[in-house]
Amino acid sequence: MTATAVERAAMTHALEIARRGPRGLNPQVGAVILSPSGDLLAEGWHRGAGTSHAEVDALSKLTPEQLRGATAVVTLEPCNHTGRTGPCAQALIDAGVRRVIYALDDPGAVSGGGAERMRAAGVDVVAGEQAEAARALIDDWLTVQRLGRPHVTVKWAQSLDGRAAAADGSSQWITGPAARADVHRRRAVADAIVVGTGTVLADDPALTARDGHALLPHQPVPVVIGVRETPADAAVRRHPHEPLFYAEHDLAAVLADLRDRGIQRVFVEGGPTLASAFLAAGLADEVLAYLAPVLIGGPKLALTDIGVPSIGDARRLVVDEWLPLGADLLVLAHPADAEGTTSTGAAAAPADLNTSRNEGAA
Amino acid sequence: MTATAVERAAMTHALEIARRGPRGLNPQVGAVILSPSGDLLAEGWHRGAGTSHAEVDALSKLTPEQLRGATAVVTLEPCNHTGRTGPCAQALIDAGVRRVIYALDDPGAVSGGGAERMRAAGVDVVAGEQAEAARALIDDWLTVQRLGRPHVTVKWAQSLDGRAAAADGSSQWITGPAARADVHRRRAVADAIVVGTGTVLADDPALTARDGHALLPHQPVPVVIGVRETPADAAVRRHPHEPLFYAEHDLAAVLADLRDRGIQRVFVEGGPTLASAFLAAGLADEVLAYLAPVLIGGPKLALTDIGVPSIGDARRLVVDEWLPLGADLLVLAHPADAEGTTSTGAAAAPADLNTSRNEGAA
Repeated sequence: MTATAVERAAMTHALEIARRGPRGLNPQVGAVILSPSGDLLAEGWHRGAGTSHAEVDALSKLTPEQLRGATAVVTLEPCNHTGRTGPCAQALIDAGVRRVIYALDDPGAVSGGGAERMRAAGVDVVAGEQAEAARALIDDWLTVQRLGRPHVTVKWAQSLDGRAAAADGSSQWITGPAARADVHRRRAVADAIVVGTGTVLADDPALTARDGHALLPHQPVPVVIGVRETPADAAVRRHPHEPLFYAEHDLAAVLADLRDRGIQRVFVEGGPTLASAFLAAGLADEVLAYLAPVLIGGPKLALTDIGVPSIGDARRLVVDEWLPLGADLLVLAHPADAEGTTSTGAAAAPADLNTSRNEGAA
Repeated sequence: MTATAVERAAMTHALEIARRGPRGLNPQVGAVILSPSGDLLAEGWHRGAGTSHAEVDALSKLTPEQLRGATAVVTLEPCNHTGRTGPCAQALIDAGVRRVIYALDDPGAVSGGGAERMRAAGVDVVAGEQAEAARALIDDWLTVQRLGRPHVTVKWAQSLDGRAAAADGSSQWITGPAARADVHRRRAVADAIVVGTGTVLADDPALTARDGHALLPHQPVPVVIGVRETPADAAVRRHPHEPLFYAEHDLAAVLADLRDRGIQRVFVEGGPTLASAFLAAGLADEVLAYLAPVLIGGPKLALTDIGVPSIGDARRLVVDEWLPLGADLLVLAHPADAEGTTSTGAAAAPADLNTSRNEGAA
């Protein structure tokens, strides 16, 4: 069974209205209800954790008479789980909906199974309509489900020989303008930008995503990790978003808290100590190393100790791209041992999910 | 005045026979003598320092009658300098040669001026015939004249973060087979391969240029720098060439001696200390950094101190190529401050190359 032309158009519309909802703890979902003759009766979308799911939002706008024999078009498989809201699959059955078209299977072990429940109740169910577009829409959210924490990009700039600064600590403009502009564009697709207190005290960064002096439309939430106090007049305190301060060194706990706040993508920019700590903890999903064609030597290393006693323990990377940027080179890579791994041990993640994750920052 | 078709063909032949001579202290030069009607009367080439120049070698094969009104075709401007042999320009005049075609101007301040002397004596002189081919043939020799020392390539392999080994010293196979094969090909175009005693004692390298297990046709002379003793059973002692040992740390003195031995291209492979010493001394004309996509961290740095106290002193490079080799990347670069300088352009030469440049121009 496949979707009709009218249903396909309705799915395209559902994907559009899904974007009205917020990025966050829950996925962005859109729904459209069609009459048996194919007229659009109602639309709905999810407005964030604690509010109605998209299908229920749409159903709520119609009378029992209108719903009888109707078709629901939804971007994600209707859930089968009683959480803060009841199971959407049951709500559609109860409303007398005759046919359900959805794009993407629900990846949740707890919430999945909605399609099966509806089919058992005699509803026509068509799965997979425009699945790739639906997957792209909530790719970061899917990654969080798979990893059990936000996706982490660890970024640093270094000389060719791996230094972050000269012996006296001076480091301004190791990389050139094209590399710096690239960093700002990538900041702007992250939900949070993370630095250590050492970087705040040494460099007083604004932690905004900018195009020249202009702020880009999306700004990541600034996050400062470390026990030292951030000065009252620090630039980060003038960021469009209220900064988050974590006076601790348990990075897994910090990521868990960020996840609970709906943060899906984290951009770690925070100096050699913090970058090395994320790498040592195996908490880097993506590595961005900006290499400047310069040799510095000396003691100021871009990465310090990452827990590699012997060469067999070295952190092998898979390079996704060697990307020249002006005179510099961006090495875009991910850990080799992260390939094919899945969220919380579940061996279920399909290969194409890994691919989309690796291309997520493009 | 330009060369005739017969003279052009004679120059192509002169370039071929020039290659019969050895690479070394003197340039490879070929000469052909044509009769007034264009017949090939004699050919000559330079067999190395202390032997006849190519023109004189060819002249010596002919009688005064044959030489009267003849044409000489030579790959390098006939010299104007009395060294171990008399000035070739005068020999050609004295022989009654009526016309001289040559490819490349003599770059020597002392030996140059041959064309002028011959013109003053009434000889037809055509300069520049196939100059580029002649330049390519003796490019390395010309570089030695310009630098006042052999050309130096400094090569190292490193992890992305600039490490040569893990904390315990283990380093085998940081880079992959494609990168290692590339190193061997580049060794095979060098006249000497230089390591420090530390590398000899730690790795016992063969210092041969190989394709798999097979030796490549040209082998660089192995050079070991440092005061520690090389063991009697070291692999380098079984090299096809007798190794050269320098129990000192004055790199300029080592290069001067290698120059006097006719060595034109030096390939420095010799461990972090030696590579850093060449870079610190401004004695690197080319940098080859093989980057493996791996992170190691820790204390075993590919480059140590290269004398950069502040970021303004950093050694800027110009990258000639970012060349992927299997999973690795070769960064092929040269120092930015070496660009556009010439042998006689002492005023424009950067501070760290001035000394050698002045020696070259003297």
